[in-house]
Amino acid sequence: MAMETMQDLLMDEVKDLYSAEKQIVQALPRMIKAAQTPDLAAALNEHLRVTQKQVQRLEQIAQQLGKGPNGKRCMGMEGLIEEGKEVLKEGSESELLDAAIIGAAQKVEHYEIAAYGTARAHAEHLGNQRVIALLEQTLEEEKQADENLTQLAESFINQMAANEGAMEMQRSSR
Amino acid sequence: MAMETMQDLLMDEVKDLYSAEKQIVQALPRMIKAAQTPDLAAALNEHLRVTQKQVQRLEQIAQQLGKGPNGKRCMGMEGLIEEGKEVLKEGSESELLDAAIIGAAQKVEHYEIAAYGTARAHAEHLGNQRVIALLEQTLEEEKQADENLTQLAESFINQMAANEGAMEMQRSSR
Repeated sequence: MAMETMQDLLMDEVKDLYSAEKQIVQALPRMIKAAQTPDLAAALNEHLRVTQKQVQRLEQIAQQLGKGPNGKRCMGMEGLIEEGKEVLKEGSESELLDAAIIGAAQKVEHYEIAAYGTARAHAEHLGNQRVIALLEQTLEEEKQADENLTQLAESFINQMAANEGAMEMQRSSR
Repeated sequence: MAMETMQDLLMDEVKDLYSAEKQIVQALPRMIKAAQTPDLAAALNEHLRVTQKQVQRLEQIAQQLGKGPNGKRCMGMEGLIEEGKEVLKEGSESELLDAAIIGAAQKVEHYEIAAYGTARAHAEHLGNQRVIALLEQTLEEEKQADENLTQLAESFINQMAANEGAMEMQRSSR
């Protein structure tokens, strides 16, 4: 379908995001199961809950735009999730696996930050205040989720450094 | 290969980025050709030049880490580029196509912001100052590129609004 108006482009972006969010809902349980620390599992669980709400929000947006949200397969998210699965297959354990899972999750977050940012800009052009507000709400949640993951990554990295420091001290005191 | 140390994880991330940047170098000329306005073509051309330098920087980083940068296919970037090709196939024209191209390019930028951000955090854990500095340099370039694209998108959207306003005035003055 050739896109002729900004409304067509925005609807295309909403369908793409709808597919992306649903792929995330499907992929997260595997990530949660693989998480090595309760902190990461809890953060991903919370993210699953928020993502389910974001799916519903996209349904509302599509309704506002007068179309259904189905009909597209988000290729970008497919690749990102494929990459996330590879991380799990590489089979490392402990905080190192968690650090890799967080890296994969942040790529997903950044995809969404870019996509919702673009969609919001296009919605602003159309001037549909309800759609702008719904997109803005999710965009802020995605930025917050990315920030939370960065903080979690930093705390893991510090923990790993502390563990290595302790092992080093044990070795040198033998 | 099971990852056992943070150095393994970082090397894996560098290989992934090396594949990602090389895919971008291959994909950009098609985007540049499709761009409808000289401003977008110029911005993408400049980005191609910067990306080629970033490829070289990853080669330096890999050398610092004592490994070659080849051997991985970045699945995430593959999906993002696939998505960018779809945008071109949808066959709209004028500023609308440029708005869609910018959206696709910003997804690529955000992938890189996430990936370089994670790699830099892991390099900091290892304490290799040269590697940290090289990753940081590219990360800042990616953030700047994303910012430039946002500004370009805003100017297009304003231009489209002005065009529509002018057409509206023409219609109402007939």
